Amino acid sequence: MVAESLCWIGVDWGSSHLRAWALDARGQVLARGGSERGMLSLTPDEYESALLNVIGDWLPDTSRRDVLVCGMAGARQGWREAAYLPVPTRLDALARSAVSPPCQDPRLRVRLLPGLCQTAPGHFDVMRGEETQLAGLIADDPDTSGFVCLPGTHAKWARLERGAMTRFTTFLTGELYALLARQSVLRHSVAHGQSAELLDDPGCHEAFVAAVRESLASPGDFSAHLFGLRAADLLDDNLPAGEGRAAHLAARLSGLVIGLELAGTRLPDPGVTPVGPVTLIGDAALCERYALALEAVGHTSRCLDGERAVLDGLALAHRALARQPLAE
Amino acid sequence: MVAESLCWIGVDWGSSHLRAWALDARGQVLARGGSERGMLSLTPDEYESALLNVIGDWLPDTSRRDVLVCGMAGARQGWREAAYLPVPTRLDALARSAVSPPCQDPRLRVRLLPGLCQTAPGHFDVMRGEETQLAGLIADDPDTSGFVCLPGTHAKWARLERGAMTRFTTFLTGELYALLARQSVLRHSVAHGQSAELLDDPGCHEAFVAAVRESLASPGDFSAHLFGLRAADLLDDNLPAGEGRAAHLAARLSGLVIGLELAGTRLPDPGVTPVGPVTLIGDAALCERYALALEAVGHTSRCLDGERAVLDGLALAHRALARQPLAE
Repeated sequence: MVAESLCWIGVDWGSSHLRAWALDARGQVLARGGSERGMLSLTPDEYESALLNVIGDWLPDTSRRDVLVCGMAGARQGWREAAYLPVPTRLDALARSAVSPPCQDPRLRVRLLPGLCQTAPGHFDVMRGEETQLAGLIADDPDTSGFVCLPGTHAKWARLERGAMTRFTTFLTGELYALLARQSVLRHSVAHGQSAELLDDPGCHEAFVAAVRESLASPGDFSAHLFGLRAADLLDDNLPAGEGRAAHLAARLSGLVIGLELAGTRLPDPGVTPVGPVTLIGDAALCERYALALEAVGHTSRCLDGERAVLDGLALAHRALARQPLAE
Repeated sequence: MVAESLCWIGVDWGSSHLRAWALDARGQVLARGGSERGMLSLTPDEYESALLNVIGDWLPDTSRRDVLVCGMAGARQGWREAAYLPVPTRLDALARSAVSPPCQDPRLRVRLLPGLCQTAPGHFDVMRGEETQLAGLIADDPDTSGFVCLPGTHAKWARLERGAMTRFTTFLTGELYALLARQSVLRHSVAHGQSAELLDDPGCHEAFVAAVRESLASPGDFSAHLFGLRAADLLDDNLPAGEGRAAHLAARLSGLVIGLELAGTRLPDPGVTPVGPVTLIGDAALCERYALALEAVGHTSRCLDGERAVLDGLALAHRALARQPLAE
C-alpha cells in the first residue's frame, strides 16, 4: 500500500535508535518506522540490513528509491563517513556533501548527510542530526535569522543569519541533570522524572523559575548551589514534606542546569536588545520547560515539533539532490 | 603495649570508613587503626562492636578511657545524633555539644562531636567531620583568621574570624569531576586517575592552569566547556596523541571544575585585596593541585596534613571535655 505512493524515504539515525518515514511526492508521511539499532550497536556492514528491517516493506519490488539519512550513520564510526561541514555554512548546502554508502539491494539509493563542525580555537564543537532539523527552518524561508535551541542530553544553540549557521554551542545540560539527579549525593533528595509536576504545581514552577534566574545571575555559584540542594533537604523547614519535597528539589535542580546553559548562550539582555523569539525544536514537554525558563529571564520563544523539523530538513536536502548529480 | 601509655582515643568516623588513633598524655600517636565499617554500613547498635574491633586491643583491662569521635557517627542516621551547631560559632565550642552514645563495655567513655550547619536562607549548608579539622587550626592560635579549603568529594570552604567560623560553603567538585570523567560522554576522552601526570607533565600543567582561569573568568561557560572537551578530542589537531591526549583532557576537566569552585568562593581579587595564604587541609596530592589552581589566579596557599588537623581538633575538644562535666 505504501509502495504505490512512495516517493522517497527519510531516516534520522541516531546513536541509540533510528526513525524512518515513508514520504509521497508532496512530502506527506505515508508510514513511520523505527528500531533500537542505533550507531553504537552496528558495524558498517550491518547498516543495510538494519535499514531494510525497518523500511523493507515500504519498497516497491523493482524500482529504486532515494533514502536520505541524517545523524550518526554518517559518523566516522558509522555506516560511511560524511565528513563534517565547517561553519559558517548555509543550511541548504548539506545535500552537496552527502555521501553514498555501499548497498547490495538494487532498490536502495542511500545518501548520508554530513554533520557540522566548528573549529575556532577554544570553540570546538560538533553536531550530527540537529543540522538537518535546523535546515528544516529554512525550508519555507531561505533567509531565516535568529537564535535556535534544541534541548536534550546535549543541548544545542545555533545562531542563524539569513539562512546560514554562523555559530553554535553545545551544552551538557541533559546529561548533567541526569547524572546529578540519579547518581550523585542529590539522588537522595531529588525526584526522578518530574516534567509533569514541574509545570502544573505552583511550588515547583516557582522553584524552577527562581533557580533559572539564580544560575543565570551567578553561574559561579553553580557547584555550591548543587550541594545547597542537599543541605536544604536536611535543614529547610519551608520545603514541602513527602513526595512534594523531592519534586520541588528536582524542579530546582532542573532550573539550575538550564539557567547555567542560558548563562553560556550569551543571549543579549532582553531589556536592551530584544532578539525576537528564540526557536525551540524538540520534545514538546522539554521545549515547554525551556520556554518557561526563557520567559523567566525576559525572552520570548516559539516551539517547533522535532519530527516536523527533521522532515522539513530532509525534504529540503532531497529537493536539492534531485537537482544535482550524485556526489560520488 | 599501647595500653600502658594510652591516655585517650580519637576517631574520625566517616560515611564509608573509620580511622582511629591511640594517643598518649602528650597527644603523641601510639597506634593507628581503621576499618571499612562506615556510617552507611551500620545500624546504631552495631557501632560499639565496630569500634571495639578496631580499638579493643589498645584498651587497658579495667580502667575507663575517653574515646572522642568526630564525623558521621554523630549524624541522625548514625550512632546517636549530635545535633548540628549553627554558625557562626567559635571552633573551640564543639566539645560543649558532644553527646554520649550508650555503651556496654565499661572501659569505654565515648563522646560524639557535633557537625556544623548554616541556615541562612539560600545558603543552607552542613558539615560533619571537617569542623574538627578546622578546630585543629585554632589549637595553637585561638584567634586564627582566614580562608580555609578542605578539597574532596564535597569540598568545603570556611571563613575563620578570630577563632570563629562565620560562614562556609560546600562545593560538589570532587563528585562532579568523578561523574563527568567516568560516567558522562567525556569518559571516552578523559583519562582516569591522573594526579601524578598533572603536576609533572608541562602540557597537562598548562591545560589545568588555563582551564582554572577560564572557569573562574567565565563560569557561565562551564556546561559548554564540558562538551567542548569532547569536541576538542574529535577536532583539535594541537592536542597530544595517544595516552597524553586523555591525560591532557583530564587535566583540563579538573581545572574546569576547580575553577568553577573558585568562582563560587568569591575570594577577593588578589590584586586589590590580598587575603593572605589560603589554608588547604587534606590529601597531599589534592592540596598540591589546589595550591596550583590558587597560584594560577594570584592567591598564595599553605598545605596542612589532614590527619594532623583532625588530631589537633580532637585534642582541643578532649582538653575542653577534661575541664567540664559530661554534657549528659
